Amino acid sequence: MEKTVSEAIAYRRSTRVYTDEPIDSNKVKQCLVNASLAPTSSNLQLWEFYHITSKAVLDKIAIACFDQSAAKTAKQLVVVVTRKDLWRKRANANIEFLNKVYDKPDLSERDLKRKKMATNYYKKLIPTIYLDFLGILGYIKFLVFQIVGLFKPIYRQTRLSDMRIVAHKSAGLAAQNFMTSMAAVGYDTCPMEGSDTLRVKQILDLPRGAEINMIISCGIRDDKGIYGPRFRIPFDEVYFEV
Amino acid sequence: MEKTVSEAIAYRRSTRVYTDEPIDSNKVKQCLVNASLAPTSSNLQLWEFYHITSKAVLDKIAIACFDQSAAKTAKQLVVVVTRKDLWRKRANANIEFLNKVYDKPDLSERDLKRKKMATNYYKKLIPTIYLDFLGILGYIKFLVFQIVGLFKPIYRQTRLSDMRIVAHKSAGLAAQNFMTSMAAVGYDTCPMEGSDTLRVKQILDLPRGAEINMIISCGIRDDKGIYGPRFRIPFDEVYFEV
Repeated sequence: MEKTVSEAIAYRRSTRVYTDEPIDSNKVKQCLVNASLAPTSSNLQLWEFYHITSKAVLDKIAIACFDQSAAKTAKQLVVVVTRKDLWRKRANANIEFLNKVYDKPDLSERDLKRKKMATNYYKKLIPTIYLDFLGILGYIKFLVFQIVGLFKPIYRQTRLSDMRIVAHKSAGLAAQNFMTSMAAVGYDTCPMEGSDTLRVKQILDLPRGAEINMIISCGIRDDKGIYGPRFRIPFDEVYFEV
Repeated sequence: MEKTVSEAIAYRRSTRVYTDEPIDSNKVKQCLVNASLAPTSSNLQLWEFYHITSKAVLDKIAIACFDQSAAKTAKQLVVVVTRKDLWRKRANANIEFLNKVYDKPDLSERDLKRKKMATNYYKKLIPTIYLDFLGILGYIKFLVFQIVGLFKPIYRQTRLSDMRIVAHKSAGLAAQNFMTSMAAVGYDTCPMEGSDTLRVKQILDLPRGAEINMIISCGIRDDKGIYGPRFRIPFDEVYFEV
């Protein structure tokens, strides 16, 4: 029986030691389908999910995670990867989908307008923002946008570092869907950012444009794998009603 | 009755037009408590949540969101903010918590070791990674770490842009907890990155070190507020079992 959202969120704890109990790859895969249903910047889905079940690869990645027990004792791993280099391919996939959705003989005026707006978004606006050349074009755009921004509201995230942030942020949304879904079926996880990302990329044979978002270890929690009670900053220090 | 995780994830759609029906601020706030239970890099919780319920401020932020209908018709807004500038304060809060947890007369050897390791983590490792000066120190560390990394696995995310990514990624985890929790109680959301982040910071009077992660509009979906069927890249193009 799957947990409710609040139950799953309360249940999830970063798990640093797993028991020897195996977990079902298909259930983990289903949780990754849930991951892929997260919202994503401009629906570009600049993400990939590497589901590691091979013992040999698990061992290699554990070393790249500095042999921390969360990785070493994991039964499976999921490596969430950003692919900002795929922006044009993904934009084209969105355009193709729009062509299919609106492929009807008698489009209403509203539909015609919506199709045009959405298609322009992917054909013109996305390249304006994403097109870059060694980080230089992004900086030029950034400066121009700052000046225009003196006179009217404008989008400002055009530098290479901003593009990286956009991709990692969306991948984070997917990662959280994954971890909540795992908790809902009684599986445990630990998101790890402490890894040698260059070595992980080599192990998975990822291209230059790919970046490691996080590595999520998976298994069943051992009691000693939860390090003490949960600590959160008092809520009134992070929450402000305006 | 709250939805299960899979139900909530299936229900959530980015909602671009909301009905006039009001939503309950307290329920939204409770969903933000769930947001704050997301995992976060080194448990530093470099995030803040601005819950906008005042009509005057809603109107101002809608303009900074280029008057898009997802913002204009929203009943409330949540601005997720990153505060990487608070890393030292948050590290100290973790140290204080550790002191409280381990404040017992008869600590076992395992507890003593764990306390020492965790305290060292926040007192030594976190400053090594987070301490920066105008982005220069971060770059120097980055280069040194690349050289050390030739010989052994090492952490490589030390540049200013990497620090920004870490904070935005964790804030993304919290944002997704929030949106899933909203869906679970039948409330709708739309995460917006298209905004003039500088103007939003001015409206909320945020300090220089704060960054806008995303603005999430909230309300009840209008049928015409869901723009067509959901589009996802075929799963076998983003999922790889290794």
